[in-house]
Amino acid sequence: MNSAVIAIHGGAGTITRAAMDAQREREYTEALEHVLREGQRVLAGGGSALDAVTEAVRLLEDCPLFNAGKGAVLTHAGTYELDASVMDGATLNAGAITCVKRVRNPVLAARAVLEHSEHVLFAAEGAEAFAEAQGLELVSPDYYFTQARHDQWQRARATAGMALLDHDAAALAAQAARAKQPEGTDPIDPDRKFGTVGAVARDARGNLAAATSTGGVTNKQVGRVGDTPVFGAGCYADDVAAVSATGTGEMFIRTVAAFDVSAQMRYAGLSLEESARRVVMEKLTAINGRGGLIAVDRAGNVTLPFNTEGMYRGIARVGEPVNVWIYG
Amino acid sequence: MNSAVIAIHGGAGTITRAAMDAQREREYTEALEHVLREGQRVLAGGGSALDAVTEAVRLLEDCPLFNAGKGAVLTHAGTYELDASVMDGATLNAGAITCVKRVRNPVLAARAVLEHSEHVLFAAEGAEAFAEAQGLELVSPDYYFTQARHDQWQRARATAGMALLDHDAAALAAQAARAKQPEGTDPIDPDRKFGTVGAVARDARGNLAAATSTGGVTNKQVGRVGDTPVFGAGCYADDVAAVSATGTGEMFIRTVAAFDVSAQMRYAGLSLEESARRVVMEKLTAINGRGGLIAVDRAGNVTLPFNTEGMYRGIARVGEPVNVWIYG
Repeated sequence: MNSAVIAIHGGAGTITRAAMDAQREREYTEALEHVLREGQRVLAGGGSALDAVTEAVRLLEDCPLFNAGKGAVLTHAGTYELDASVMDGATLNAGAITCVKRVRNPVLAARAVLEHSEHVLFAAEGAEAFAEAQGLELVSPDYYFTQARHDQWQRARATAGMALLDHDAAALAAQAARAKQPEGTDPIDPDRKFGTVGAVARDARGNLAAATSTGGVTNKQVGRVGDTPVFGAGCYADDVAAVSATGTGEMFIRTVAAFDVSAQMRYAGLSLEESARRVVMEKLTAINGRGGLIAVDRAGNVTLPFNTEGMYRGIARVGEPVNVWIYG
Repeated sequence: MNSAVIAIHGGAGTITRAAMDAQREREYTEALEHVLREGQRVLAGGGSALDAVTEAVRLLEDCPLFNAGKGAVLTHAGTYELDASVMDGATLNAGAITCVKRVRNPVLAARAVLEHSEHVLFAAEGAEAFAEAQGLELVSPDYYFTQARHDQWQRARATAGMALLDHDAAALAAQAARAKQPEGTDPIDPDRKFGTVGAVARDARGNLAAATSTGGVTNKQVGRVGDTPVFGAGCYADDVAAVSATGTGEMFIRTVAAFDVSAQMRYAGLSLEESARRVVMEKLTAINGRGGLIAVDRAGNVTLPFNTEGMYRGIARVGEPVNVWIYG
């Protein structure tokens, strides 16, 4: 259990009735395996946990299958607003950006904040100005476009309408949308999925890091910030554990889910697995929080709990075959 | 110790050499006492902790002496970008906004998010659109103007220049600025102060709440988000403790300072006072974090630790005189 290891996730959600499409399932599996092997390669070469999670999330952003970078979901206004974060457990250094519309790889902007700013979080135009000043690649919104996300957004809009300002009406509209939705093509239903991506790693020196990136939730209000760029909620790393989360972000913020995994280990002496289980299966469910997380501790233990039917996820230990799962 | 109580802060920092200006000190003392008495009145009338902290922070925002609402500091670009948050410990309901430029009372926008949105955090134009849709008062940037903040910004700009992207250069520039600064007029040096405001309360039913509001740090980069709207960092409330923080926000984010006060009590059995002391005097100082926090627990214990020379702060228990302090 003492070697370098990386774990990733590509979102959690409900298994579709069309889940038996073997071709589509293979695409997801192969994409996850590819990302894991690249992260594994960074660690095998003596790279830091911080470098491994940054590279893994960059690749997940570039893959149109996942809701981050290319393939991001659309806001209610039909725009893209992306969030990302990265944290180095060895130093507690952290960087995040939220509500960016033009940065090709949000996780690289987050990494630049970590390395080159006295601040840890930038929003909107200020975040884009920072990314541009750092020489990062900017793209037009067309870059993020995928037909699948566009169709998903139109389904959400058609049923949710302007109701999203009203909590009860939104819940009713979402129920209606679920009842009417067409069969999905992803193994995990794209209309009932929380599509954040993330990575956690422990490197050969025993240091930990976490990174998370997302396009948010389909048809979200413009300006909505979820748990991804909120340290302690959707991303956290210290010298006890590194955690990346995916799910109904608001509940992960309200429970400070990622930090709580570390806190229960540090203060109550829980194991990584039990601490993460309590967060996902007890604390989040107590406020109707849905989703999952991936976590690694200093000893290289990894846990990948979720309270949905499935979560795209995998583990790669240096020198061992990669393992990928979709269902529960 | 079982009655309703409210505590507030108006920022922490370094005592000025001109601190003996008795007139100015009296202005701050009277402002804090006024806010405490209004919060006390809400609680005495059977109002909730949530209502008491919202009202206290609204009044602190309206007071030009403090860096929140009217009297906010300026960004590097000479603009105003305000953040606020509020959290109800009884339900874990939360609302926050960041980088708003036109909302008169950011804490009322945060409260509206808590009550009327399925989301918990909105940024920039999206946050303003939400506030406008909720019927909240919008103002022109002139509203926030005070001569004192403008002068402070010009001093910071003159010495820091474009250096703020570079951490080391910024630290050197700040040192130079301190050496050259004119004598302040505030008891706590406006050039070396972390000017967030906040309130925590325990109501007669034993419920807890916290609220925080800020203009951020003088001459900050546009789009910078500090700890104020980050739940767990600058604001948190659950059924164990309610916490509002002020200081170098980045370090409060990296240590998840506000939630950590509650976590150490819940998991390690620490008292409120000892838990808050460890966060402020050990965990924050370990990464050069400066500032303080105010916290209350279910039993009505209150603690107000800070690692700077002074913090504007006070406590009011229902049926007792209010108490206000500035220095250590």
